[in-house]
Amino acid sequence: MRMKKFINDPQNLVSELLEGMVLAFPKKVRLSGRNILARAVPKESGRVRLVTLGGSGHEPGLSGFVGKGLLDYSVAGDIFAAPGAPRCMEAIRTACADGNSALLVVLNHAGDVLSGNIAMEMALREGCKIKMVLTHEDIAGGPNPDDRRGLVGFFPVYKVAGAAAERGASLDACLEIAGRMERNMRTLAVAVSTATHPSTGQPIFELGDDEMEIGMGQHGEAGTGRMPLKSADETAEIMLNMLLEDLGVKSGEQLLVLVNGAGATTLMELLIVFRRIAHVLVDKKIKLVRSAVGEFITTQEQAGFQMLIARMDPELIELWDEPADAPFFVKQ
Amino acid sequence: MRMKKFINDPQNLVSELLEGMVLAFPKKVRLSGRNILARAVPKESGRVRLVTLGGSGHEPGLSGFVGKGLLDYSVAGDIFAAPGAPRCMEAIRTACADGNSALLVVLNHAGDVLSGNIAMEMALREGCKIKMVLTHEDIAGGPNPDDRRGLVGFFPVYKVAGAAAERGASLDACLEIAGRMERNMRTLAVAVSTATHPSTGQPIFELGDDEMEIGMGQHGEAGTGRMPLKSADETAEIMLNMLLEDLGVKSGEQLLVLVNGAGATTLMELLIVFRRIAHVLVDKKIKLVRSAVGEFITTQEQAGFQMLIARMDPELIELWDEPADAPFFVKQ
Repeated sequence: MRMKKFINDPQNLVSELLEGMVLAFPKKVRLSGRNILARAVPKESGRVRLVTLGGSGHEPGLSGFVGKGLLDYSVAGDIFAAPGAPRCMEAIRTACADGNSALLVVLNHAGDVLSGNIAMEMALREGCKIKMVLTHEDIAGGPNPDDRRGLVGFFPVYKVAGAAAERGASLDACLEIAGRMERNMRTLAVAVSTATHPSTGQPIFELGDDEMEIGMGQHGEAGTGRMPLKSADETAEIMLNMLLEDLGVKSGEQLLVLVNGAGATTLMELLIVFRRIAHVLVDKKIKLVRSAVGEFITTQEQAGFQMLIARMDPELIELWDEPADAPFFVKQ
Repeated sequence: MRMKKFINDPQNLVSELLEGMVLAFPKKVRLSGRNILARAVPKESGRVRLVTLGGSGHEPGLSGFVGKGLLDYSVAGDIFAAPGAPRCMEAIRTACADGNSALLVVLNHAGDVLSGNIAMEMALREGCKIKMVLTHEDIAGGPNPDDRRGLVGFFPVYKVAGAAAERGASLDACLEIAGRMERNMRTLAVAVSTATHPSTGQPIFELGDDEMEIGMGQHGEAGTGRMPLKSADETAEIMLNMLLEDLGVKSGEQLLVLVNGAGATTLMELLIVFRRIAHVLVDKKIKLVRSAVGEFITTQEQAGFQMLIARMDPELIELWDEPADAPFFVKQ
């Protein structure tokens, strides 16, 4: 069966989609070098720059968060592939020009970490003022944080570190905020149907007609539990309880909850899942202080969702509430 | 095959998804009667209220646009079904309380129009100050405007009429703005794969493995052209040319272009399609002055998209640019 996608030459997917993004949001973003997205209007000199990197094919995804209050640069790799150190270095060099400092946010996936680490070495050797934060909040990876992948948690990290940078916080202060957000968040994903790789036309994993898999990674990496499909309420409770236990949340604590659609799962379903999460938190006397429901990173037309919880303190809430203006996230 | 959706009892879909929306966006929306969504904080008295109605299962869809600068009330029907006149009347009565006036926006679908017309009669008999605007911009319906369905064009109409209402424009002025936007916009849809009706579990239409259908309606209503799947660029050009011809756009004119994903079509594809639209407009010396790419109304996990063009004048652009703050559309 032919892949039913509106594309042209699969070789040009990434450059075409980024050009489309710049044409659609010309007041927000521009291209800065090959497949590097930058703000249309650079941030005031002297403020910390936020840089990220990661594969494409996840739109909205990382590059959709370049804009005021969020990222300054996003280095886009090919479909589901890390961008490689040289282009990351190119973005860092631009970010750190004129003595500016930068915070690099990397999601824990082998290729991305390799690209990020090499670029960091090169950048520090060149005298750039840069620090790096790694997101690895997917509890499906087991107890060792190094084995935990970075899922939608990049978004709260961009949000609070981006807001701090906008306010003029130092590089160390931005790193501290990003790290605090990262340590206090946990994500778990569930998948019910696969995506098609848009370059190869192949499904990226297989699942039975009545199965779902909890713990599946962003690109179909194996999860922890394949089981018969459950109702929205049952799925929400199973996942929420796993997250609450892993983060060690106690009654009275304040949480941010984010539900991120994988691509083809409808917003109707995400809202029904969120409803159950909110009810369970009331029962457990845990305070739901902030929330987000929508598509923040997808995997083509995969069906499923990611559930993220994060323990919030007054400063994190204040930074979360600051305005933002990127192609795929706007906050007044 | 079991429907792979995260739902509970299919009978409760609408009330659960609306409750989820209120729980996820408590500062923006609240419930006002059964399955009627209202702003969390009502608009200042004396300003025109915007009311809409329509079926559910299209999330984000109509109810996601309740908020500052957009709608005041949305009356949600069951899945793909009109809400019926009595509940529309309930919302209108609330909107028109204390001598306030209201503009009812109805998309041209038989059930919605019936609900809207009966509610209008009841409301006028009760002395409500209310007028109605019908959106029917889908060119696939043929040359007679009455046969043209209302697709994603509800969104620009909400946006400009909502901004005018926020500024304190009179009911007649809001109606004029909404009507002007409506007359100057055209939409065309394309589908490549079907949705599953979430209550019945049935696919809502059938398409061959290598087919697409241009002109398909919001719920799988027959279109004008079933043809072999084409590339993004070819599809974009075919559809854009049909729209430009129907609207009679000449070089030098100013257009808004909106690309709306049907549900499972990726944002990657929408951006690639948008890129080609922007290029063709440059070639034709037509000015792309504003744009929007994303999911504004979907049909569950259907794949395809809607392309909308609208002729803009300085006042429409100014109203389009005003801030808005609804669950699924925020503009700074």
